[in-house]
Amino acid sequence: MEMGHQFKTVALVGRSNTPGIGEPLMALAGCIAKRGFEVVFEADTAREVGATGYPALTPAEIGARADVAVVLGGDGTMLGIGRQLAPYRTPLIGINQGRLGFITDIPVAEMQQRVPQMLAGSYEREERTLLEARIVRADEPIYHALAFNDVVVNRSGFSGMAELRVFVDGRFMYDQRSDGLIVATPTGSTAYALSSQGPILHPQLQGLVLVPIAPHALSNRPIVIPDDCKLRIQIIGGRDVNANFDMQSFTALELNDTIEVRRSRHTVPFLHPVGYSYYATLRKKLHWNEHPSSAAEEDEDDDASL
Amino acid sequence: MEMGHQFKTVALVGRSNTPGIGEPLMALAGCIAKRGFEVVFEADTAREVGATGYPALTPAEIGARADVAVVLGGDGTMLGIGRQLAPYRTPLIGINQGRLGFITDIPVAEMQQRVPQMLAGSYEREERTLLEARIVRADEPIYHALAFNDVVVNRSGFSGMAELRVFVDGRFMYDQRSDGLIVATPTGSTAYALSSQGPILHPQLQGLVLVPIAPHALSNRPIVIPDDCKLRIQIIGGRDVNANFDMQSFTALELNDTIEVRRSRHTVPFLHPVGYSYYATLRKKLHWNEHPSSAAEEDEDDDASL
Amino acid sequence: MEMGHQFKTVALVGRSNTPGIGEPLMALAGCIAKRGFEVVFEADTAREVGATGYPALTPAEIGARADVAVVLGGDGTMLGIGRQLAPYRTPLIGINQGRLGFITDIPVAEMQQRVPQMLAGSYEREERTLLEARIVRADEPIYHALAFNDVVVNRSGFSGMAELRVFVDGRFMYDQRSDGLIVATPTGSTAYALSSQGPILHPQLQGLVLVPIAPHALSNRPIVIPDDCKLRIQIIGGRDVNANFDMQSFTALELNDTIEVRRSRHTVPFLHPVGYSYYATLRKKLHWNEHPSSAAEEDEDDDASL
Amino acid sequence: MEMGHQFKTVALVGRSNTPGIGEPLMALAGCIAKRGFEVVFEADTAREVGATGYPALTPAEIGARADVAVVLGGDGTMLGIGRQLAPYRTPLIGINQGRLGFITDIPVAEMQQRVPQMLAGSYEREERTLLEARIVRADEPIYHALAFNDVVVNRSGFSGMAELRVFVDGRFMYDQRSDGLIVATPTGSTAYALSSQGPILHPQLQGLVLVPIAPHALSNRPIVIPDDCKLRIQIIGGRDVNANFDMQSFTALELNDTIEVRRSRHTVPFLHPVGYSYYATLRKKLHWNEHPSSAAEEDEDDDASL
Repeated sequence: MEMGHQFKTVALVGRSNTPGIGEPLMALAGCIAKRGFEVVFEADTAREVGATGYPALTPAEIGARADVAVVLGGDGTMLGIGRQLAPYRTPLIGINQGRLGFITDIPVAEMQQRVPQMLAGSYEREERTLLEARIVRADEPIYHALAFNDVVVNRSGFSGMAELRVFVDGRFMYDQRSDGLIVATPTGSTAYALSSQGPILHPQLQGLVLVPIAPHALSNRPIVIPDDCKLRIQIIGGRDVNANFDMQSFTALELNDTIEVRRSRHTVPFLHPVGYSYYATLRKKLHWNEHPSSAAEEDEDDDASL
Repeated sequence: MEMGHQFKTVALVGRSNTPGIGEPLMALAGCIAKRGFEVVFEADTAREVGATGYPALTPAEIGARADVAVVLGGDGTMLGIGRQLAPYRTPLIGINQGRLGFITDIPVAEMQQRVPQMLAGSYEREERTLLEARIVRADEPIYHALAFNDVVVNRSGFSGMAELRVFVDGRFMYDQRSDGLIVATPTGSTAYALSSQGPILHPQLQGLVLVPIAPHALSNRPIVIPDDCKLRIQIIGGRDVNANFDMQSFTALELNDTIEVRRSRHTVPFLHPVGYSYYATLRKKLHWNEHPSSAAEEDEDDDASL
Repeated sequence: MEMGHQFKTVALVGRSNTPGIGEPLMALAGCIAKRGFEVVFEADTAREVGATGYPALTPAEIGARADVAVVLGGDGTMLGIGRQLAPYRTPLIGINQGRLGFITDIPVAEMQQRVPQMLAGSYEREERTLLEARIVRADEPIYHALAFNDVVVNRSGFSGMAELRVFVDGRFMYDQRSDGLIVATPTGSTAYALSSQGPILHPQLQGLVLVPIAPHALSNRPIVIPDDCKLRIQIIGGRDVNANFDMQSFTALELNDTIEVRRSRHTVPFLHPVGYSYYATLRKKLHWNEHPSSAAEEDEDDDASL
Repeated sequence: MEMGHQFKTVALVGRSNTPGIGEPLMALAGCIAKRGFEVVFEADTAREVGATGYPALTPAEIGARADVAVVLGGDGTMLGIGRQLAPYRTPLIGINQGRLGFITDIPVAEMQQRVPQMLAGSYEREERTLLEARIVRADEPIYHALAFNDVVVNRSGFSGMAELRVFVDGRFMYDQRSDGLIVATPTGSTAYALSSQGPILHPQLQGLVLVPIAPHALSNRPIVIPDDCKLRIQIIGGRDVNANFDMQSFTALELNDTIEVRRSRHTVPFLHPVGYSYYATLRKKLHWNEHPSSAAEEDEDDDASL
């Protein structure tokens, strides 16, 4: 538990294009306002849910004015607003709409109980790392993006393998022929990287993971490097290779383009209810331990299962 | 559906040392007997549940006399009696006690409805392959066993890597340094082999899979071979290497011992209710598709899970 | 060894756009012609290497007229001409230009010794399976292709996950959210499927393997099915999904398009030198056993490698 | 490059029971002594190679007296002396006898050139983490060990699955049913953990990896945690479970025994020649990039290979 600075202004952000999100958001707004906090809405959310009684602010305005943002949606919503608020260090509280998220860990049904407790100072705070990436073409930076989960360089489905040359802190790591390469933060390690055989990285690990996608060399295994490393990925072969950032912005790459990836100087604070357990989220999301421990008695009969 | 030969005598087999199994077994016996079938009990089961009103037979006697065996327990119980009845080709019906098995696919709650239908001729029949293995030391066979799931050669936890030389149909395949090697049938492919990164083999595939356990060479991948191949595994290094068959009988091996594995000439018929789907069992056991298809709408927000 | 029918006409096929291929091809042509065989050239090859002294035939003409085709190039060249000759059952002999292929197993340096022996009747023959796929849109077939290695359905690099619904012999297998799905023959099991964690399938296994690419559900493991199964893959979600066949022809798919895959009625005969070992090729290509067996003495000091 | 403190006394350590190691060791001793360093031998090494002209010291005496230890052997030799010298922070230089090691990175053939340069101050220094483990039974510590690579808890080959309960910093992580669990340092991440599907951890990553061995739950993936975490592994099921440390000391465990693992307060300095590249070692050991970059031209023809 941490008795933080005093929260005064609370921003509410909802998942866009989501029927049924207005009611719980407005209820939460009322519940918070009633306790004396100033409630503001993210502008798109305000318009979509018709939150006319509250100020509607852009993300930048939220960053400047709000002390904390409460996000209702899924992990994607949280990543999106997180990238925008990163420069302001606005702490985020994540509420899921029914399906537990890796980072939206409060069920909507418990929202009205949990959020006021947290706004009153009862929370656990952790900092999550972001990546900062830029694409350099002919020595000129042509694109810049933040990524919460991952920077992915991959071939299109219409082409052969990509060939990538990877440098870490200026040292040659390898030439890799593959469908692509994922550079993931701990937050992103449970997203796309996990599907591609990457390990889970604890949120507090100061590391990044490079996960090759369908590599030609079977020994091209995921590798975890310190997160203060500077990574450079050069396109040395393949057609229709592109880069994306949190699966959100896609950029077509050309031969010899370089993607530079490093830890952002920004981190994003996440607030959790007191007693929050990252491992409990993993257990639920990954269906660990779903059998009662009586399962131990069943040894003789058991086959491998999930 | 298949209108089989007429079943007259039905053997009941229960999982041993299992409190609470007597009641459903006796109820099933009554339900079947009432319909005019002769009911017999496997002797250990009879003693454990006190089934005094029915003949108590050894597995060999069941093989000689019963037309079908109904097994209540888990997959392990099914494998055990299956190995014993294999020489008699007695068909098996598998009932699980609450937790779906890969091969005990009828829930106990549906037993009294399903089993009589099946005994009346409404069932789907499939044949499952067994392995026959023998251990040869100094040119003498010293051990022989049947295996439904797998033949496993592995090091003990107290020693370094095993070194195995593998021949297929007399041709040298490889020398493998590893914790061991699993040779699995399709039935066994969803058991230990799956935990060791093996593929799933469809029950009707005429193949066996060799799955290395923690191989020293990262490119030592699972390999699926036709099931009429004759396999020879020679211990060429390592201490405290042993072999087991369906995880049930363990034999300590010595340097230069050879394990010969081939498909048994016996197969075991499994009977399933009409409409049985192997894929439905996989989906349930492996938690595939547990999210409603509305999940498709959630694309934006989804992280890898399960 | 097999004393085959008498070969009379031998077709030579070379990898296209490959400097330096003319000399060995012309030498081989001379060496074969000298022994009394009729030598014909594939037309593109003839033009590229300037083989003016021999008949230049289209693949269809080769199929009709030649008794055997000798292919000089890599596995891709072999796959390409193999698809074209499949309807004619023309046997293939594969020669690699320096780097051992999985299916081009004769080194160019041994070509002039091996090929005449094989043409004289000393060879081992095996049949390789092909896939036949068609794409159906609104109940109309819109595309048809043969594949030697694999049929791949995957998302483009510019879009989110594909959602695929898979049926086997009309039975629902699963809904899969992933980057895509590979359906591979035994021949294809050592190609792209292997990079995506698929098992190796022995060439004589009567099976196909379904390998998910970066599946959302971690338990979506490769599954091997009998090769007489009929497979139907329906696009039920995702944008920019496409299909390709041996990575050669790419087709953009739309929502609800269905890809039907089955074993082709054609098989392609491969001829190998007497003593050929599939396992020897695997060992070399996958760097198995590259350490001398004295490695066993090094137990104490060894770390995992390769 | 680092101009270190002045080395005066150099200890030489050789792999035990290794014919042919005497000659290079004595040559190295002479070469170093000639340059004015005091040369001492590890006592066992001295006896085995008959190094009568130099002081023979126990590891503890080496720790107290030598400024640096040069180890000739394989990675196992390096790990062994490293554990013994850890309390003294004696820097290590590793020389391999012919087969490149992950941590013995100087080839014996370059030894007489490289080592004097390094002793003269031209080297790169890095610190490697060790683990400290203790086994607690009925609240009493019964065993204590250091591990350079890994702490492994696993079942014997003669028993069913182990069931382990894992806590991290006092928080419950999961109950795991498996063949066992590997806790590896970055140094150990390329050893046994790699064979069990673990990721590679960069030596400077401040992390440990937990790698399950053949876990029953397919989603039990490797997880990397900060290396200041305190780990507790409790045996809650299974028979014949044991623990080992760098595969060297084996201890039989009982139900409810607990293995506590934490980063040792000791680290071991490794010295490398100037220009040393960890990635170059990985590339060579894991056969990355063994094809010339001209491979890019071969796209059309390529199959997956190592």
